[in-house]
Amino acid sequence: MVTKNEVKYIQSLYQKKNRLEERLFIAEGPKLVGEMLQSGYVIRNIYATSQWCDNNSNIPATPVSDAELEKISLLQTPNQVLAIGEQRPPSGDPVLKGHFSLVLDGIQDPGNLGTIIRIADWFGISQIIASPDTAEFYNPKVIQSTMGSFLRVNLWYQPLQELLSQSPVPVFGALLNGKSIHSQQPLNEGLLVIGNESKGIREPLLPFISNALTIPRIGHAESLNAAVATGILLSHLRAGINGG
Amino acid sequence: MVTKNEVKYIQSLYQKKNRLEERLFIAEGPKLVGEMLQSGYVIRNIYATSQWCDNNSNIPATPVSDAELEKISLLQTPNQVLAIGEQRPPSGDPVLKGHFSLVLDGIQDPGNLGTIIRIADWFGISQIIASPDTAEFYNPKVIQSTMGSFLRVNLWYQPLQELLSQSPVPVFGALLNGKSIHSQQPLNEGLLVIGNESKGIREPLLPFISNALTIPRIGHAESLNAAVATGILLSHLRAGINGG
Repeated sequence: MVTKNEVKYIQSLYQKKNRLEERLFIAEGPKLVGEMLQSGYVIRNIYATSQWCDNNSNIPATPVSDAELEKISLLQTPNQVLAIGEQRPPSGDPVLKGHFSLVLDGIQDPGNLGTIIRIADWFGISQIIASPDTAEFYNPKVIQSTMGSFLRVNLWYQPLQELLSQSPVPVFGALLNGKSIHSQQPLNEGLLVIGNESKGIREPLLPFISNALTIPRIGHAESLNAAVATGILLSHLRAGINGG
Repeated sequence: MVTKNEVKYIQSLYQKKNRLEERLFIAEGPKLVGEMLQSGYVIRNIYATSQWCDNNSNIPATPVSDAELEKISLLQTPNQVLAIGEQRPPSGDPVLKGHFSLVLDGIQDPGNLGTIIRIADWFGISQIIASPDTAEFYNPKVIQSTMGSFLRVNLWYQPLQELLSQSPVPVFGALLNGKSIHSQQPLNEGLLVIGNESKGIREPLLPFISNALTIPRIGHAESLNAAVATGILLSHLRAGINGG
């Protein structure tokens, strides 16, 4: 059973301000919570229906009814279990030399950010550096749409001009009139800048893009979704790279 | 000004049942409505704020206040104009010979469907055949996330087993243990089957996939989002193809 105060407290974590203050976040569903339990994340509390509790009898959890889960869940279809975890910002700075990292210039939509984190994980990229106005890593919509990849990818918030101007590795970015991605060799080292959903890569960063790339267009759509473009770029830039 | 009855009528179109009965759909925002005005779509009515009306004085529209637009809009941030258009299902059957077409096996999420339509348009694909349980083409979330590409891409709902079993062109599909997309030659003709978000390509269709393809994974994510996978597959399958 979950008390009225607990319900209020959990609901307060729907808001960024409270998440930041408490340094907590929410993750839902058996798959995500299952992966969290096997990661280094500290879990404060688990609220679960009898179905989940029966399957995970070795894990301490607060049993809740379906109606109670519905009250604390953010999902349209609540799914057995909700966990409250402690935020864990990456320790130390990103290591650019010898790695391929993503740079996000103001990605606004939490679903896009989560999908990009999942794509990074697929292509063996564990470092993302984002402008301070990018969506929040621990937004519940981000966490859910990573499908668990938030456990394996680190994200730093940093001013990008400084980062790119001092980059010791080549800086790639998708721009009109760049070199076709089909003629680009795969890379073990570099930064790939992904632009904002409506504005693309913003003006002040353009001088630092040393290698402009283009996804050739055959038809008539004006642009591609930011996450889709990230997937396409990485599938070419990371072709034949071995995982690490 | 918009009457109470009009508000009710427009809101009734939020529901699929009513959209199908009335054979209408809703599109919002200056960019989308602007593109619709230049397409072959019949527009029944336009509701617009003074800002839009001032910029489009030659187009008949019902002027509405910001508060009125908010009442009829489905967007979180209503954007100047809402149009009601007549649905226009494609006439005739898809022509498989000589074309590259997409096949969707139960894509559930309207945002994914809209994004896939936008990707198809980018890669010069104007034919999509979807299983009857795929999301509805005229769902407002689909329309909005196509960013206008719904005007240039035709979508048919058909049982897929029949379609694939009689296909006169090769049938591609993303499967584990397929041939790497990096070794696949670009194609002018074929079908590419995209599977359901959680189940992938469903069992009964598997015997008809003549060419299994795989997006090599370097890291640890379990899967890619359906729209992202579509973008990656098409960026390889359509490399160097000329638009038509």
